[in-house]
Amino acid sequence: MGWMLGAAALVSLAALGWSAYATYSVARRDAGSPRMREIQAYIREGAWAFMIAEAKVMAITMVVVAGVLWAVFYWEVSLAFLIGSGLAMAAGFIGMNAATLANARTTHAAQRSLKEALTVAFSGGSVMGMAVAGLAVGGLALVIALFRREFDPAVLYIHTKTIFGIPGADVNFIKGALIISAYSAGASLVALFDRVGGGIYTKAADMAADLVGKVELKIPEDDPRNPATIADNVGDNVGDVGGLGADLLESFVGAVISAIVIALYVYVGRFNPDIQDLMAKFGLGDRITADFWWFALLPILFVAGGIVACLIAIAYIRFSRREKDMQGILMNGTRLGAVLTAGFAALTTWLSPFNWIPFLSAIMGIASGIGIGFVSEYFTSSRYKPTRELARAYQSGPAIGVTEGMAVGMLSALWPCLIIAAATVLAYQMGGLLAVAYAALGMLSFVGMTVSVDSYGPIADNASGIATMAKLDPQVREKTDQLDSIGNTTAAIGKGFAIGSAAFAALGLIAAYLWSAAGRADEVHVPNIPIISPEVGGLVVAGMIVGAMVTYVFSALLIRSVSRTADVMVQEIRRQFRENPKIMSGEATPDYKRCITITAHGGVRRMVLPSLLALGMPLFVGLLFGRYTLAGFLVGALLSAIMLAIYCGNAGGAMDNAKKYVEEGHFGGKGSPAHAAGVVADTVGDPLKDTVGPSLDILIKLMSVISLLFASLFPVIPFFLR
Amino acid sequence: MGWMLGAAALVSLAALGWSAYATYSVARRDAGSPRMREIQAYIREGAWAFMIAEAKVMAITMVVVAGVLWAVFYWEVSLAFLIGSGLAMAAGFIGMNAATLANARTTHAAQRSLKEALTVAFSGGSVMGMAVAGLAVGGLALVIALFRREFDPAVLYIHTKTIFGIPGADVNFIKGALIISAYSAGASLVALFDRVGGGIYTKAADMAADLVGKVELKIPEDDPRNPATIADNVGDNVGDVGGLGADLLESFVGAVISAIVIALYVYVGRFNPDIQDLMAKFGLGDRITADFWWFALLPILFVAGGIVACLIAIAYIRFSRREKDMQGILMNGTRLGAVLTAGFAALTTWLSPFNWIPFLSAIMGIASGIGIGFVSEYFTSSRYKPTRELARAYQSGPAIGVTEGMAVGMLSALWPCLIIAAATVLAYQMGGLLAVAYAALGMLSFVGMTVSVDSYGPIADNASGIATMAKLDPQVREKTDQLDSIGNTTAAIGKGFAIGSAAFAALGLIAAYLWSAAGRADEVHVPNIPIISPEVGGLVVAGMIVGAMVTYVFSALLIRSVSRTADVMVQEIRRQFRENPKIMSGEATPDYKRCITITAHGGVRRMVLPSLLALGMPLFVGLLFGRYTLAGFLVGALLSAIMLAIYCGNAGGAMDNAKKYVEEGHFGGKGSPAHAAGVVADTVGDPLKDTVGPSLDILIKLMSVISLLFASLFPVIPFFLR
Repeated sequence: MGWMLGAAALVSLAALGWSAYATYSVARRDAGSPRMREIQAYIREGAWAFMIAEAKVMAITMVVVAGVLWAVFYWEVSLAFLIGSGLAMAAGFIGMNAATLANARTTHAAQRSLKEALTVAFSGGSVMGMAVAGLAVGGLALVIALFRREFDPAVLYIHTKTIFGIPGADVNFIKGALIISAYSAGASLVALFDRVGGGIYTKAADMAADLVGKVELKIPEDDPRNPATIADNVGDNVGDVGGLGADLLESFVGAVISAIVIALYVYVGRFNPDIQDLMAKFGLGDRITADFWWFALLPILFVAGGIVACLIAIAYIRFSRREKDMQGILMNGTRLGAVLTAGFAALTTWLSPFNWIPFLSAIMGIASGIGIGFVSEYFTSSRYKPTRELARAYQSGPAIGVTEGMAVGMLSALWPCLIIAAATVLAYQMGGLLAVAYAALGMLSFVGMTVSVDSYGPIADNASGIATMAKLDPQVREKTDQLDSIGNTTAAIGKGFAIGSAAFAALGLIAAYLWSAAGRADEVHVPNIPIISPEVGGLVVAGMIVGAMVTYVFSALLIRSVSRTADVMVQEIRRQFRENPKIMSGEATPDYKRCITITAHGGVRRMVLPSLLALGMPLFVGLLFGRYTLAGFLVGALLSAIMLAIYCGNAGGAMDNAKKYVEEGHFGGKGSPAHAAGVVADTVGDPLKDTVGPSLDILIKLMSVISLLFASLFPVIPFFLR
Repeated sequence: MGWMLGAAALVSLAALGWSAYATYSVARRDAGSPRMREIQAYIREGAWAFMIAEAKVMAITMVVVAGVLWAVFYWEVSLAFLIGSGLAMAAGFIGMNAATLANARTTHAAQRSLKEALTVAFSGGSVMGMAVAGLAVGGLALVIALFRREFDPAVLYIHTKTIFGIPGADVNFIKGALIISAYSAGASLVALFDRVGGGIYTKAADMAADLVGKVELKIPEDDPRNPATIADNVGDNVGDVGGLGADLLESFVGAVISAIVIALYVYVGRFNPDIQDLMAKFGLGDRITADFWWFALLPILFVAGGIVACLIAIAYIRFSRREKDMQGILMNGTRLGAVLTAGFAALTTWLSPFNWIPFLSAIMGIASGIGIGFVSEYFTSSRYKPTRELARAYQSGPAIGVTEGMAVGMLSALWPCLIIAAATVLAYQMGGLLAVAYAALGMLSFVGMTVSVDSYGPIADNASGIATMAKLDPQVREKTDQLDSIGNTTAAIGKGFAIGSAAFAALGLIAAYLWSAAGRADEVHVPNIPIISPEVGGLVVAGMIVGAMVTYVFSALLIRSVSRTADVMVQEIRRQFRENPKIMSGEATPDYKRCITITAHGGVRRMVLPSLLALGMPLFVGLLFGRYTLAGFLVGALLSAIMLAIYCGNAGGAMDNAKKYVEEGHFGGKGSPAHAAGVVADTVGDPLKDTVGPSLDILIKLMSVISLLFASLFPVIPFFLR
């Protein structure tokens, strides 16, 4: 055990070391002219202020939840929860800090060469990628090392605890499983707040800036006269960087702990014939007792190997000396990362007492992620038919444009669902729910790379904004725009990974929940949840319906939060232009701060209700209606969330890129009726793709991990049927 | 048995008698001026031509499916299928015929008094309501009487048949269950074609007429200069009348046969202890053998009672002498129908050997339907907050308008889902899946009334169109518009019934499928489908994901069909105005026929792919992946379809009514920016609420009944796991 956690800690330190080095290598560069520095300072200040305000709300929630965990379970559980949430918050701050340092420096570098700009932007992004991976795996190793007594195979058994001393209120769980679940739940809760808050912020600012700027006043994107430009650029950093980092950290943690939790339950139930069949599938036979640590901690070694692979790939991209075909560098780096990740997975599997099933499951996870990524790319890139046809439909006006865009999004569900379904069946047949968890693990062990590329996009975006706001030579903006488009294909793959990994991580967490729910006193068996059965059938179906409904209500709350915050912002922008005509002529500086305050306020205030819904619903359903109903609830929510997330992501992406395709001069180009329709469609698609879609990914994981954490509290048969 | 089927046949004749009488009473009225007659003739001709073209495509499909049924099973199954499809087609034609007779006569009557116009329009609608109910129950009684040998309790057992003589390809089923399933499947397939074809027709015509007429040329709705007006009015008849009739007929049949199929399986398995527990819940004990006919045919008596109740309520409305408060007459009639339906249900339950559970389940079904109806009304009527706030949001432009409209639709899923979930749990706890089927039955036994009121809406709509096209005094149009709004609340309840009944009917059919799938050779047991289990767990989850995906792809195909057909139509309308400027000045008549031909062609051609998808997917999944996977598939599709149908229906309804609210003079009234945004939002919402939503209702029922029909062919364990 010792060497495994030691290795994980070393890898974690290496990853964090890279983050520190990359931050330093960005920070020591020149940020350009005083005007550029000034703009950057505005953005940094806005981003820090928002994330601190957000952190305050989170801190209160965390303390309350930690208190509940202490009261119900143990102080160790409570502490693990706080560690998880603290690290997730830290990941958001570290990434946002680097991104807001890198933006102006990227612009400045672009004045010299495209290659240099790429280096700065990518370095900035890699800070986040490595911080996420390093913190996640380091934190987990820390938690396990701290409470190693609870993972000792000699004392691993199903605890029974009487809640608050109430007679009959006995709950059963493995304490170690509870502790790492709490760690994961802490990270998830922060991720949801970050994603929802950041998502509302970024899209409200974006919509408002576009609606008044582009549509009403016909001034270009990022024009310094628009009071909302700075808020729009802040949004990229808090939503697309900060939110994303916390999100992927929690996917990563969720995938690892679900595999470990299942392993712990399997170990405890190792004498049950059903479970022996399952272990035989993994080629384990009786070696599970002797090789307990391999069995339990293989997931950590898996992801540690992935981090090393990503580190090598990132270094390759960062230090590449090629001056041309930069898209090629990114793609090669991504490929290198994928191959090395697979290689490390093969190595650790080979060293372990397992047969090849964990490795094969992981490979299938990686392949599914890439497959889903290519489908997203096909449906949302203007290089392919769907988006081009959508651009053509824009000629028939905004109504047909939006309608066709929705159709593209719905149609795009076809292949990702088939891929996820096929991967689920294959993994399940290979090794039950544990193999499904390994598929998730495979996908996530590649996370360092996808986060790095994903965070590089918003940095390039910001760099473009700064170029326009600082009134630099238009050639600079052309270069930064090019930078942005270089990362597009890799970013689309990243999005596919996000949806795919969310689906698998949630399945893994649901699986872990089911194993925990099936474990009672000294008996553990392979879970079996009936959709339709004489005893609880109606409850499970009802749970599924309510679970599916919750994702719709959650989405509605988010959409409404964005559009209402944007509405307040629109009034403010109009007011500024009306009350001070000098803003329009460029003689006066608009009041950027007020706009930043409005969106920040909207983001923080409006993130609370959806987050509490996500936190509260599993508890409500589980406590009142029991474990089976909650299982149905989670499955219903997962199904519905996968569909909505794919639909929202791809509809929004296609609407956006079809508009850009028109802007490139097709179907009348800028200023044509097709363009006007495209702007409307893009505005409709914006909250779908950047607020609802990503938040749904977290919603299902958070609800699953909360269920896992509190599983033991939920009755088997609800009170009204006893 | 004899008297039960006799009673059903009598009730059926009474219902059909009312249809004939009401058609006659409408037809003998004056259709008004020559101009009105001419317009009516155009509409009638267009509607007949389209429905005949549609019928040809259907006929080919029916013959193919009937051939397959004959080849695989028996000629009796094939014949039952053809009877079901023939009657469903007939229901569509009878309703459409009456509606296209009633439209101009309603306009003419409105020149005299509002009350008279209501009488004509409602009579026209009641033709459809009673035809649907009469044909459905009459046809079922006929099929059972024809093949009564297969329902004889003395010979009721699980047949085993070797398919095509292939060794090992043995399938097991109850032949009687197969025959009535085929009857239901025939009706469903016609319903889907009618709904999809009619839905594409009506919305493509509507969108195109609005986009060129209202948005581009600023001419009012139904202006005779617009070449698409006639097509638009034809659409109301083929989509909202013809499609609706076939749809509700199949819900009705599906609800009845699922309860009978379950009863047949329960009877065959009556010696199994599990099933004896279930029978005990219904207070049946050992009386099931003696009272077999009560047990099997109670569903038919239930709905026959409902038809009598509706007939009385319809007569009350039709012959009411009150001249004022016509909304009150409609509401009172609906209430009377509901109370009488409940009364008849109580009476038949009391006469039967059952305890009160069938009655209580049915009441719960009726109550859920009304509850869901009121929620729809709340979210889509401009008398309440959500739609008024949406109208306010229109002031911020089309993008925010569409976005907020989507949020309203998503939010509206909350209560209907809770109602459906609660009703499912309660019914299930009372009497398992059989009670769920009775809940569906309760909802559907009220169908005569809801169809009558629902078909009355499009007649009033058409009457308004004719008033404008014939250039009558604007007061006439005011009256017909008033007629339309009088029916709104009752129609909203009808929509709630449609969604709720679809959900329950599909659950009932899925339940019947599960009972059939669980019946093997001489053993029948209570079905038990695991979501997660050692053997088939992965398959069921994968099935759910694919099922949910199919509803999205189906919706995308429909949306696209509408917008592409509308697009062709827009080009044609523009061409006519461009090539003949006299059309705009009113000196020349536009070429209505060409527009009718274009939409008809689009509707017929584009209905094929989605319909084949719905027909083929359950067969594909079942044959390749087995019974459990298909069960997951159906549950996933049901979940996703319920959500999407509620979302689409209410988002579209709210967008439409918010626009009307603006037109009434709020937030700037007609011609204001809010109105322009409202027109865009309404156009986006149109295909959602009138094409996608209703078609999804049928999709899930059709897929469920196809699964039920072919259940015995699907392997228990798929070939690749053997």
